[in-house]
Amino acid sequence: MTKSYQSEIIAVGTELLLGQIANTNAEWMSEQLAAYGINVYNHTVVGDNLDRVEQAFRLAQSRSDIVIVTGGLGPTEDDMTREGFEQLTGLEMVEDKVTMDKIESYYQARNRTMTPNNRKQARVFEGARVLKNNAGMAPGMYVDFQGTHWFFLPGVPREMKQISVEELFPFLESLTGKQQVIQSTVLKFIGIGESNLEHELTDMIHEQTNPTIAPLAQDQGVVIRVTASASSKEEAQKLVADKKQEILARVGDYCFGEDEQTIENKVIELLIEKNKTIGVAESLTGGLFSSNLVSAAGASNVFAGSLVTYQTAAKTSLLDLSAEWISTYGVVSQECAEVMAKQTALKLNTPMAISFTGVAGPDEQEGKPVGQVYIAIWDEDKVVESSSILLSGNRNNIRERAALKGFELLYQYLNK
Amino acid sequence: MTKSYQSEIIAVGTELLLGQIANTNAEWMSEQLAAYGINVYNHTVVGDNLDRVEQAFRLAQSRSDIVIVTGGLGPTEDDMTREGFEQLTGLEMVEDKVTMDKIESYYQARNRTMTPNNRKQARVFEGARVLKNNAGMAPGMYVDFQGTHWFFLPGVPREMKQISVEELFPFLESLTGKQQVIQSTVLKFIGIGESNLEHELTDMIHEQTNPTIAPLAQDQGVVIRVTASASSKEEAQKLVADKKQEILARVGDYCFGEDEQTIENKVIELLIEKNKTIGVAESLTGGLFSSNLVSAAGASNVFAGSLVTYQTAAKTSLLDLSAEWISTYGVVSQECAEVMAKQTALKLNTPMAISFTGVAGPDEQEGKPVGQVYIAIWDEDKVVESSSILLSGNRNNIRERAALKGFELLYQYLNK
Repeated sequence: MTKSYQSEIIAVGTELLLGQIANTNAEWMSEQLAAYGINVYNHTVVGDNLDRVEQAFRLAQSRSDIVIVTGGLGPTEDDMTREGFEQLTGLEMVEDKVTMDKIESYYQARNRTMTPNNRKQARVFEGARVLKNNAGMAPGMYVDFQGTHWFFLPGVPREMKQISVEELFPFLESLTGKQQVIQSTVLKFIGIGESNLEHELTDMIHEQTNPTIAPLAQDQGVVIRVTASASSKEEAQKLVADKKQEILARVGDYCFGEDEQTIENKVIELLIEKNKTIGVAESLTGGLFSSNLVSAAGASNVFAGSLVTYQTAAKTSLLDLSAEWISTYGVVSQECAEVMAKQTALKLNTPMAISFTGVAGPDEQEGKPVGQVYIAIWDEDKVVESSSILLSGNRNNIRERAALKGFELLYQYLNK
Repeated sequence: MTKSYQSEIIAVGTELLLGQIANTNAEWMSEQLAAYGINVYNHTVVGDNLDRVEQAFRLAQSRSDIVIVTGGLGPTEDDMTREGFEQLTGLEMVEDKVTMDKIESYYQARNRTMTPNNRKQARVFEGARVLKNNAGMAPGMYVDFQGTHWFFLPGVPREMKQISVEELFPFLESLTGKQQVIQSTVLKFIGIGESNLEHELTDMIHEQTNPTIAPLAQDQGVVIRVTASASSKEEAQKLVADKKQEILARVGDYCFGEDEQTIENKVIELLIEKNKTIGVAESLTGGLFSSNLVSAAGASNVFAGSLVTYQTAAKTSLLDLSAEWISTYGVVSQECAEVMAKQTALKLNTPMAISFTGVAGPDEQEGKPVGQVYIAIWDEDKVVESSSILLSGNRNNIRERAALKGFELLYQYLNK
């Protein structure tokens, strides 16, 4: 029975609190630690302020087995990590000869004079294990303080990652012993809301232990992360695979892919599979659907082009809709979506076409409310899908949701 | 004497601790708060665990004037934010009728059955100020607990940002505005890099005190935030205005607007001013330029439509480029960009047109390297701009930079 370690990650740097950069170090480190079976319970960001750094360290010392600190090890005045830990622990700082030699030879090699504050980077805590930095100057270090394992790493992502892979993780594994292996997969859904998805799986979510099931709403739809831990990779993978089948047995109709799969990639895959090319007609979306499709590599195999008929006049000049036809059916109608799709397939000589028309707002149009959207799909010689939907949100939310709905309808049609 | 507020940001969500996503919400919020002159002293990430959420809230209550919580407000079982705050404060939860009506009508309008857990999203603390969510279901809320200002926001970035801009910041300003007199303006630049801009203003940036001058590279180009604090609003505004003039005297040629102004809005304004409509021809950008143009309200006054001629065949079918012409000049050439613009103006009956062709990658095309892009502008009866540029980055960076370059060229031409 291996002990379960509780860890946390502390980033030191005012630039994070100013919103100049995101704390991607914590994101990366958390993903790595999860793979080593170490639970991360907190991320903390604190600025370059001695007392607040010490306060963050004090809290971590009181609650965690493993603390990983990134940043604040540099040569400048505002690098406070060493000082904060010194103030908390009273540990002495010494100069690491290996690091100092490295710094000196660096400056000699470039005939540059070393400034005093460069020495600061060679200072480590007495008895600390130095974690070699092959990507930069300041080394990382490991300190065991009253049974809590402290790791200090530079804030520059490249250096932080390299030291972690080369020095930290191997040592951590020897320290904690072989932990449970963690495997996880992200199932991606479209056409079902987070709450409906959750409702379908309520009992599974209530009873979840291992694997865990975590639904999460994202801009492109809902995902479920299935995470299992076991003593072997194979065992963990089997747990994930079994739970995945259990989930898909209930809501598989809405699941379009896993992990890195996007709905754009999936639709392109299906079009290639069916050997179809597609044209697009866009009114309210104004090119957004086409642009999203093209954002996925491989689009050139299936996407011929688009007619963005934004102004009504363009529907006449590009799609040959007569003024009479328009005055009869209007440009915000199911009929218009259907004829847009048909004419686009004709103009582009593609078997398939999808069309979008509707009211993005701010004002209503032809008596149709803001958010009213019509989407049609043409295949070979007929309309195979014609939807009328009401979307909420502001002008651009509506455009984004209309484009996403288009991918949903296309996926459902091609996946039949 | 202005009171200085100490704020912190707490993100609730195990997905962050698993390294599934970075805490970009804290990054964005911090940058916004800095602009309001509010100091952010801590970021904290805590998982979907009732006791740890309460622990994080308890610490925040003990040290901060303003606490902003993102995430954990959704309908699902693992959303713990309400419960954690309830456990800390003992405040009662009530159902917000406006939100409940919205949820119910949402489901009615779509003939979908509401699941019980949807009601959860309508629960707010007694006496809380509800922050309307125009981008999604769960509203944000504001609670004053024992003098600490608590703001709760959904974790989905799109919803979090929209509620912040529409509801949180205006209220926050009214809350802190009495003591705080901070005025700032954001000057927006295009066609000049961050380092060149800084070089032009080096001395001003070194000598800055009040107002402060903060250059920041953003997706749409470079911005400079000028922030001044003073005892009266008028005084602060005057400080900002004077510094602004000083800056524009040096680099005004590159400044297209301020604050909420976008390059899309600016181009639309100039087109309206010159009473011109425009058509667009897109190849590598695949509709991105058009979509960006349409993202700005008012586009319908000037944007007729686009021909997205992605595959070469579409250049023939939509733009009448003969196979012979294409074999002579190629589809990745200055000549092609120019004829695309001309033909588009012709097809759409617009005085102006802009065109994009090039190589987004991953592979080179017609012997042209990845990143090679050609942009042409047509006005009345001739090509008035024809650019050949080499862009760096991955497939989508190149597409985005090409579209932005198009706005830059249009702005410079229309602004003459």
